[in-house]
Amino acid sequence: MAIKVGILGYGNLGRGVECAIKQNPDMELVAVFTRRAPETVSILTEGAKVYHVDDAVSMKDQIDVMILCGGSATDLPVQTPEFAAAFNVVDSFDTHANIPAHFDAVDAAAKKSGKVAIISVGWDPGMFSINRLYSNAILPQGSDYTFWGKGVSQGHSDAIRRVEGVANAKQYTIPVDAALEAVRSGKNPELTTREKHTRECFVVAKEGADKVKIEAEIKNMPNYFADYDTTVHFITEEELQRDHSGIPHGGFVIRSGNTGWNNENSHIIEYSLKLDSNPEFTASVLIAYARAAYRLNKEGNNGCKTVFDIAPAYLSAQTGEELRKHLL
Amino acid sequence: MAIKVGILGYGNLGRGVECAIKQNPDMELVAVFTRRAPETVSILTEGAKVYHVDDAVSMKDQIDVMILCGGSATDLPVQTPEFAAAFNVVDSFDTHANIPAHFDAVDAAAKKSGKVAIISVGWDPGMFSINRLYSNAILPQGSDYTFWGKGVSQGHSDAIRRVEGVANAKQYTIPVDAALEAVRSGKNPELTTREKHTRECFVVAKEGADKVKIEAEIKNMPNYFADYDTTVHFITEEELQRDHSGIPHGGFVIRSGNTGWNNENSHIIEYSLKLDSNPEFTASVLIAYARAAYRLNKEGNNGCKTVFDIAPAYLSAQTGEELRKHLL
Repeated sequence: MAIKVGILGYGNLGRGVECAIKQNPDMELVAVFTRRAPETVSILTEGAKVYHVDDAVSMKDQIDVMILCGGSATDLPVQTPEFAAAFNVVDSFDTHANIPAHFDAVDAAAKKSGKVAIISVGWDPGMFSINRLYSNAILPQGSDYTFWGKGVSQGHSDAIRRVEGVANAKQYTIPVDAALEAVRSGKNPELTTREKHTRECFVVAKEGADKVKIEAEIKNMPNYFADYDTTVHFITEEELQRDHSGIPHGGFVIRSGNTGWNNENSHIIEYSLKLDSNPEFTASVLIAYARAAYRLNKEGNNGCKTVFDIAPAYLSAQTGEELRKHLL
Repeated sequence: MAIKVGILGYGNLGRGVECAIKQNPDMELVAVFTRRAPETVSILTEGAKVYHVDDAVSMKDQIDVMILCGGSATDLPVQTPEFAAAFNVVDSFDTHANIPAHFDAVDAAAKKSGKVAIISVGWDPGMFSINRLYSNAILPQGSDYTFWGKGVSQGHSDAIRRVEGVANAKQYTIPVDAALEAVRSGKNPELTTREKHTRECFVVAKEGADKVKIEAEIKNMPNYFADYDTTVHFITEEELQRDHSGIPHGGFVIRSGNTGWNNENSHIIEYSLKLDSNPEFTASVLIAYARAAYRLNKEGNNGCKTVFDIAPAYLSAQTGEELRKHLL
């Protein structure tokens, strides 16, 4: 019998989860819950229904795992503890600094309800975190490097849109090849912010706007751009829609470390992602951990977990025997 | 109090484990066990002792985890079940085809003794396997690619040494760049054995040996070389010792997969290792899993496990709270 999944929030991430469920025959989408009027939301999956979010809890016996697809700023800090009180849940909470507080709030709710909640699932936090952990455990003497991109940063694109005279914008974060190569060479370089990434901006200016002023304002924006080498291209809205409507992303987690009685041998562990669609990939990770949440709860577990606490085998639809035979 | 570790077998791998223990302050090497006369084996760690392997079981209360550093062909199939009857154990059994049978034998022994045994720990099987599992679970629609090298293949070097007229030899397995690039491009190529790897051989011929015949015999050797583009270089023993005494290795695990309602978006997950010392890196993985074996047994677990069954957090000396704060 398939694992019955609910989706809470139907934006890019929610749609990605819907697509991911289609690829996993052991899973079934039961319902999408939305804050909008349900009749205005049309989904892709035949047989699945759309309900208002207020109806979710009344359906708790029909849903094995609820995937929370809201944002980390205001949605998830409220939603994850709230829904962990009734469901096994998985979220992609990605405000790194607030993870400990989020964990505690969700853990209390999930322990009380006897459900399993897995938080901060995706690729960073998520797969990147797992790779940082494994490589640190294996090579305790070494240095960690994380590079992001090439990919679209929603936060930086939003920041540009707030500049006076800007109609629309898209920002790409790009890792610097020379920095990547220096890390891969095992030199353990100390890299400044500017040496690691560049930022490329595609900006649609409003008619009559002062482009020189816009460019200067972007390049000097503290926190977002001032510490980077930033390039600004002015393009038309049509060009933006045609050439920059995707949401690609990715990055690199590298650990450079040494072994040997006198640390004489060096090793490089590198994990990288090249993603056409950031939300669809994140959604695919969420679905694998939804399977884990369901199974762990079936085994009697409860409380809040992160990707660190989940044995890899729980993510796969295959049995332990099949995994040992085919993937080990 | 430190985790008390024993090493069984003191070759390259055993010495690597000794070095790895030095890097992990929560671990302590208690003793090395050998089939040789103990007084002929000198180790690096002050305070640790060397004993004959026959004395191991009598010391079972002084050792928390025994790391089995024998070979997969004849040592581990016997040793791992035997020592799992008295100790928590970790091995690096790497004969992929025989893993299911090895698992069953070790599981029976470890369930009976109430100990934890973790088998097939290292990088392939091991870290490569974990990456195959994660990426298959995340991208169920896709293709897997594993490349090995650049690195020394002990088996192929041995095969060359058995050729008439050969005094010594070292063989490197080298992934083909064009194949790697084709995979990374997301084209999902079907690759033949010849297209994926080349083999480069450094051979010391005996005096007066027929080098043309040696080269032909190597290049046409079935299974080992016939299916590959092979290069043979004749060098002196001095050159071999000077330039080819290291044991580097590494490789790439790549999954290329698609998401989206019509599989319209493609993604590449890549994990790679570049290792100066194959045995020291394998040893470092063994030590991380020794920590896991100890902890799992403390929590009341027993039986045979693989890397698939171990949550990443068990590998790290940090607490869950520290990991969530610093690595998630």
